[in-house]
Amino acid sequence: MFRNFKMVDRLVYGRGCLAQLEGILEERRNSESGGMVFLMDDVFHGGPLPSRIPIRDGDRLLWVNVDQEPTTVTVDSLVETVQSAGPNPSAGVIGVGGGSVMDLAKAVSVMLTNPGSAADYQGWDLVENSSIYHVGVPTLSGTGAEVSRTAVLIGPVRKLGINSDYSVFDQIVLDPDLTATVTDEQRFYTGMDCYIHCVESLNGTYLNAFSRAYGEKAMDLCREVFLAERTPESEEKLMIASLYGGMSIAYSQVGVCHALSYGLSYVLGLHHGIGNCVVFDALEEFYPESVDEFRTMCDRHGVSLPRHLTSSLSEDQFNTMTRVALSMDPLWENALGPDWKSRMTEDRVRELYEAM
Amino acid sequence: MFRNFKMVDRLVYGRGCLAQLEGILEERRNSESGGMVFLMDDVFHGGPLPSRIPIRDGDRLLWVNVDQEPTTVTVDSLVETVQSAGPNPSAGVIGVGGGSVMDLAKAVSVMLTNPGSAADYQGWDLVENSSIYHVGVPTLSGTGAEVSRTAVLIGPVRKLGINSDYSVFDQIVLDPDLTATVTDEQRFYTGMDCYIHCVESLNGTYLNAFSRAYGEKAMDLCREVFLAERTPESEEKLMIASLYGGMSIAYSQVGVCHALSYGLSYVLGLHHGIGNCVVFDALEEFYPESVDEFRTMCDRHGVSLPRHLTSSLSEDQFNTMTRVALSMDPLWENALGPDWKSRMTEDRVRELYEAM
Repeated sequence: MFRNFKMVDRLVYGRGCLAQLEGILEERRNSESGGMVFLMDDVFHGGPLPSRIPIRDGDRLLWVNVDQEPTTVTVDSLVETVQSAGPNPSAGVIGVGGGSVMDLAKAVSVMLTNPGSAADYQGWDLVENSSIYHVGVPTLSGTGAEVSRTAVLIGPVRKLGINSDYSVFDQIVLDPDLTATVTDEQRFYTGMDCYIHCVESLNGTYLNAFSRAYGEKAMDLCREVFLAERTPESEEKLMIASLYGGMSIAYSQVGVCHALSYGLSYVLGLHHGIGNCVVFDALEEFYPESVDEFRTMCDRHGVSLPRHLTSSLSEDQFNTMTRVALSMDPLWENALGPDWKSRMTEDRVRELYEAM
Repeated sequence: MFRNFKMVDRLVYGRGCLAQLEGILEERRNSESGGMVFLMDDVFHGGPLPSRIPIRDGDRLLWVNVDQEPTTVTVDSLVETVQSAGPNPSAGVIGVGGGSVMDLAKAVSVMLTNPGSAADYQGWDLVENSSIYHVGVPTLSGTGAEVSRTAVLIGPVRKLGINSDYSVFDQIVLDPDLTATVTDEQRFYTGMDCYIHCVESLNGTYLNAFSRAYGEKAMDLCREVFLAERTPESEEKLMIASLYGGMSIAYSQVGVCHALSYGLSYVLGLHHGIGNCVVFDALEEFYPESVDEFRTMCDRHGVSLPRHLTSSLSEDQFNTMTRVALSMDPLWENALGPDWKSRMTEDRVRELYEAM
């Protein structure tokens, strides 16, 4: 069985295409349902971006803070806020921000039509009802969240995505201008999420020709972007790399880095991009040439990774990290093959974490 | 304004994934509507493929002959046949074949819910009502018809597509095994449609980063396929090249070759793939390096192009070809810029046709 891949329904790409969001939403507005709900990263508070978002009477703008990775509690609380507006709370959810905000928009759109807590749906294909219309407007490139069916959340037990066809965006608005103001460091960490993801899928055992082509092109674009200076053209390329990286996941899987990074983020609250970089730098054994190239990219962009992050962790924390990491069976199987358990023991994971 | 690109809703890719079509259609079957209508290229008549298609009681299998390019008359006649079954004639249309059959399936699905003749909708965004559910199962790679919104048809006045978001497939089933039995020559001509299309879009003036990335990767894959021997792996790559070529058209346009090829096919009834090859071989002036590479590919695969196709044409036929070719404004503008009319006169077109 091959996955019947659910694609984003509509995509608009181009410099300045954010201006088309108003017309796009217009077609979805109707008198019977509530207004649109905009979830916007609060880093944009007080800046010029909010005035460019087509907010009408009856719409709501909810600022979200993603200094920490989004949690199932955040989702539940946003859903409660939206639902407090009445019986037909919303005609659509529009996420404006990086991967975390994309994931929140996906999760909220799902939870507005499904009972219980977001934590009940962490896993694969657990969502039963269609989500409401939702739009992704990424302001950062790299995670591929704009095109994937995963809404990664920190839950009560572990960090795990809601993986559902219903979480796929109905519309994405890809405007490279929106990524122009992000700091170099943030841009690097988020971009490396794409690069690392491609390294893992292209070296994995799950790959087919569809995902290979997307992964190879995303990797080529990452190289063009991160082995050179930052330019407006590189913002365009990185946005496409992110899209392709996300598409490549259709028939591939990430690997060692993401598995360990999930554990690290769960315990330290590190953001996904930086967590991946910290872990990847310790994986010479698994991806030797790519780790070399990654270090060249770090040097080129003056990035020094944080060190000794695990040196003062307790035994309990190490155990939790290890448990979270080793629970990612498909990632390990993709990376190391079906007998991965013989190669990746608790001791080996601990050893790898101690080097970070 | 950037196009808000309508994507295929679902895509399944993999060797043998045709077996999943039954389950996919199952979800769409219901007691209220009629059965499924399968449009199948009659080259498969008497072979093993029909028995692998999930035809149930109440479904219809309509054989289509595409020795000539499909016409608006063919579409109208197929629609009449389907509608003769009753008031709810069909739950879905499934096209199984090459680009021509893909185009027929798209056009029939549109015309089952829109009044008049298919000829009324040749053009851009003329379709008003949603089409019925339709699935593309390509058995040839190259045209990109599986992912485009165009259903190219020969009409009473000219060869022109129905270009509509409603013609985009709801589902495509990409099984490289289905392309294994096509003759080398047919495979070459259809594959070259993708290659030429990429040459034209990558050299055009309309391109952006989205379409460039798809076009570049499709081109890379075409080179891997056609500068080498035919292998099962190359069938996989060519199927992806076709998909990427189709996607790249979102924000790009074809050029000189397609414009002239439309005229040539209209008058001579030549199939699109071979028509493109005949024309492209005469375009050294416009795409010098690519025409060289194309000839290397011809040699590599032992293909000799038909020659002197226009030597016995009448004045009237030359005039018709020229009229059809010069009516493709966007193609010329993409290729030669806004002042294309000063470079591409009737005499110049005639001269180019005379060399074919």
